[in-house]
Amino acid sequence: MFIRNHWYVAAFAEQLGPAPLARTICGEAILLYRKSDGGAVAMHDGCPHRLVPLSIGMVEGDNIRCKYHGMVFSPTGRCLQAPGKGASLALTVERIYETAERYGMIWVWIGDAAADPAKLPDLPWLESPGWAQTRESFSIACDHRFVIDNLMDLTHEAYVHPETIGQTELMEAPVAARREADAAILERFMPDIDPPPYWAQMLGKPGRVDRWQVCRFTLPSTVLIDSGVAPVGSGGFGGDRAQGVTGQVINLITPSTEQSCYYFLIQARDFALDADAAMQARFNAAMRRVVQQDIEVLEAQQAYINAHPAARLRALNIDAGATYARLMMQRATGVKADSTFAGPVES
Amino acid sequence: MFIRNHWYVAAFAEQLGPAPLARTICGEAILLYRKSDGGAVAMHDGCPHRLVPLSIGMVEGDNIRCKYHGMVFSPTGRCLQAPGKGASLALTVERIYETAERYGMIWVWIGDAAADPAKLPDLPWLESPGWAQTRESFSIACDHRFVIDNLMDLTHEAYVHPETIGQTELMEAPVAARREADAAILERFMPDIDPPPYWAQMLGKPGRVDRWQVCRFTLPSTVLIDSGVAPVGSGGFGGDRAQGVTGQVINLITPSTEQSCYYFLIQARDFALDADAAMQARFNAAMRRVVQQDIEVLEAQQAYINAHPAARLRALNIDAGATYARLMMQRATGVKADSTFAGPVES
Amino acid sequence: MFIRNHWYVAAFAEQLGPAPLARTICGEAILLYRKSDGGAVAMHDGCPHRLVPLSIGMVEGDNIRCKYHGMVFSPTGRCLQAPGKGASLALTVERIYETAERYGMIWVWIGDAAADPAKLPDLPWLESPGWAQTRESFSIACDHRFVIDNLMDLTHEAYVHPETIGQTELMEAPVAARREADAAILERFMPDIDPPPYWAQMLGKPGRVDRWQVCRFTLPSTVLIDSGVAPVGSGGFGGDRAQGVTGQVINLITPSTEQSCYYFLIQARDFALDADAAMQARFNAAMRRVVQQDIEVLEAQQAYINAHPAARLRALNIDAGATYARLMMQRATGVKADSTFAGPVES
Repeated sequence: MFIRNHWYVAAFAEQLGPAPLARTICGEAILLYRKSDGGAVAMHDGCPHRLVPLSIGMVEGDNIRCKYHGMVFSPTGRCLQAPGKGASLALTVERIYETAERYGMIWVWIGDAAADPAKLPDLPWLESPGWAQTRESFSIACDHRFVIDNLMDLTHEAYVHPETIGQTELMEAPVAARREADAAILERFMPDIDPPPYWAQMLGKPGRVDRWQVCRFTLPSTVLIDSGVAPVGSGGFGGDRAQGVTGQVINLITPSTEQSCYYFLIQARDFALDADAAMQARFNAAMRRVVQQDIEVLEAQQAYINAHPAARLRALNIDAGATYARLMMQRATGVKADSTFAGPVES
Repeated sequence: MFIRNHWYVAAFAEQLGPAPLARTICGEAILLYRKSDGGAVAMHDGCPHRLVPLSIGMVEGDNIRCKYHGMVFSPTGRCLQAPGKGASLALTVERIYETAERYGMIWVWIGDAAADPAKLPDLPWLESPGWAQTRESFSIACDHRFVIDNLMDLTHEAYVHPETIGQTELMEAPVAARREADAAILERFMPDIDPPPYWAQMLGKPGRVDRWQVCRFTLPSTVLIDSGVAPVGSGGFGGDRAQGVTGQVINLITPSTEQSCYYFLIQARDFALDADAAMQARFNAAMRRVVQQDIEVLEAQQAYINAHPAARLRALNIDAGATYARLMMQRATGVKADSTFAGPVES
Repeated sequence: MFIRNHWYVAAFAEQLGPAPLARTICGEAILLYRKSDGGAVAMHDGCPHRLVPLSIGMVEGDNIRCKYHGMVFSPTGRCLQAPGKGASLALTVERIYETAERYGMIWVWIGDAAADPAKLPDLPWLESPGWAQTRESFSIACDHRFVIDNLMDLTHEAYVHPETIGQTELMEAPVAARREADAAILERFMPDIDPPPYWAQMLGKPGRVDRWQVCRFTLPSTVLIDSGVAPVGSGGFGGDRAQGVTGQVINLITPSTEQSCYYFLIQARDFALDADAAMQARFNAAMRRVVQQDIEVLEAQQAYINAHPAARLRALNIDAGATYARLMMQRATGVKADSTFAGPVES
């Protein structure tokens, strides 16, 4: 059910050091660690000898030593040392994964095709001056596609996040979904509205605003949300953001098992660049609070589906963005219909 | 395996208010809440849109609003509001359940036939002056039929409840089981005995007593126990209870899953009518203590059966009451033999 | 998958008294208790009447009384008392197990053949003057064969137990495995080495030593490890241990379920015979610490195998001892190949 031959985020760069880190990505048990030159290593998390996870072992220089019998494996999975005289060095770690470190994240290539650096997403805001960021990672006990549904949906904010980013106008403004060759897009433009509390504070200017939200899904499981406000008529919709404030919310969802995933969330912003530690801490706390509200719903959704295996999600017109994303995922896995999705329904 | 087209207790009346209450009854996920006029609503606990339990949502007036996208459903399951412009209101909640509020309890009708008010049990002691009551509810991790077995059994008290309601005479007095058209009955009369501590205190008179216990099972899962003592020869057995004290123990067991149930227990009494708060608290504490003793045994029984799926309950002559009740339940479900019950065994 | 018609340890003698003790041995639920004469009783842990574990009941004299209806069963499983007048005494406990108390342990015979006292292992150090002992028991959440693999392996000490019994020489000294008619043997002799900290302290003499380790597996799941040091050339290898110190480590592994076991560990020693309570407490603490290190690895190994059911253990030359033991176990169960073991692999 997982989309292969793609990069998935295994960790934020700062989460990986020389200590072993265990992840399950697309159902595959993976050990990660950093070599002495800082390069990231990813390999199957099991000793080929007696089937103990290598992640309970010890990193020694560039290599990993199994906790059980002390076998040492190189970053390429070759056995460098084995117990006993004349011991076999023929055992190798089952699988080595290509890694990439980019945008402050460790990416792992899942699939049998050669790793393709060009398939990393383009996230310029994470490498450009004039942008700051807030980042948090989460583990969620749900099918990763439910997180994508949630992000490709511009109507739930009013109910799941009423006190932060939701506002009544969200229910009233028309939402448009469309497809590009390699993306599903959902967008909403709200001209001439009162800004919600968060955005009013970030803009720091009185008066009504134009507000926009543009969600863009790309394979395998990336959702970029371009979101912001600008004074009415100042050009925010047209691309001239000079008078407004813009957030680029980067959502990277890594499937773990069929019912669990990792969620790496970064909000890049072109405002509040000089946020002090206290303000940055508030940004992080707000991000965690918003995601916790989503997690409550997503895990309840998974529990419902577990108890009702024959139930199928229904899609209304507001779900067009999520539906387009689901169809892209279905095509990418070659699965005609996934187990939870009934397909688009006219509303 | 559940008996359908019957009323089951979902909650004591005081347990249901305007906040959503989630129950699983006979395997069905049900949301309950009270409308503004106090009427009870029961419906399938899942939003037909994205499969989130409605019970994590918000009751607004008479309606329930889904936590995820804010869809509003009426007590009849009709969609009154949906997100987005021109949104579909065609989705309906999968199932609405008939409810009844009677005897201080909320009853839900499970089944496809029309709800039949006449099938509510007759519990006059809960509506008559001259009777007080003690009530507690429990969740038990066992097949609900084990609770019925336990209640249709007048021999376990000596061992499970030795310090409260048990006494040696219980082991010695003959127990008689018989069948009526719509009931299984188990009864024991103990003439001219010393009363056990609880009953001696409640009677408040010195001397020996006649003690009676009459258990009556009716479908789907109700056990009424008429129990009391009266001075020897004063007519307690014959129905003249004027000199004695009587408890009507009303046991209502609601199947939840195949291995769990709710147990609503009420002891109506024609004595201690003026019990003050402290005495009433002692009655409740005693009730909880007795049931906890049963729960310990019942959950151990379920654990044994889970570990030994081929094992079958055996029935001795003392189990005749429970056996008659089991046979009534088998007939009602159309199941020839249930998975745990070997059928009656001569003793 | 369990080897039947053998004795298994159910408890250390001091762990069994008149109170009921529940064990699952080779998948069988067993109740144990001591009679008034101190004799051990073992029987199926379930009342034949209503399927409640007898181990929640009460031992009365030599008999066990079921908690539910008070049925009393004798040590032979016969019903001595049943509830109700004229009650049936025909029900019997499903199975009685032969027990033996020897070497300070309670043994239970698992199998349909007659219990054979001659099949108890020979453990003279537990009955001889001149020997003291340290004993601990453990429950481990892994296939019991992983514990045997671990004990028939003289290479893991350096990595799993580096600070206690491990030392570099262990990696360098040749290990020899061989088979006798009824045993698999793994041995290592390390002449003229510096003793590791533990042994240096126990020997209490300066200078280099000869160190030996001889592991002997016998069916069904016993591993005896003869281990010690003696001054270089003083005869320790040849059997004259007079100048040295010897530990006889007795490892008795009792399968519980397919993924859990009990581990009874005794180290008999011919040194430190006058250890005071504080020193003995240190021995016990050290034993628990060493085993906890093994348990960490063993439970991780089980978790890996659960997540990778198709994976197979590989055997290098260092695993020859464990491999011989596995082959003996396979032959004893009549299973051609067990689910986790790929068979011997040339190294």
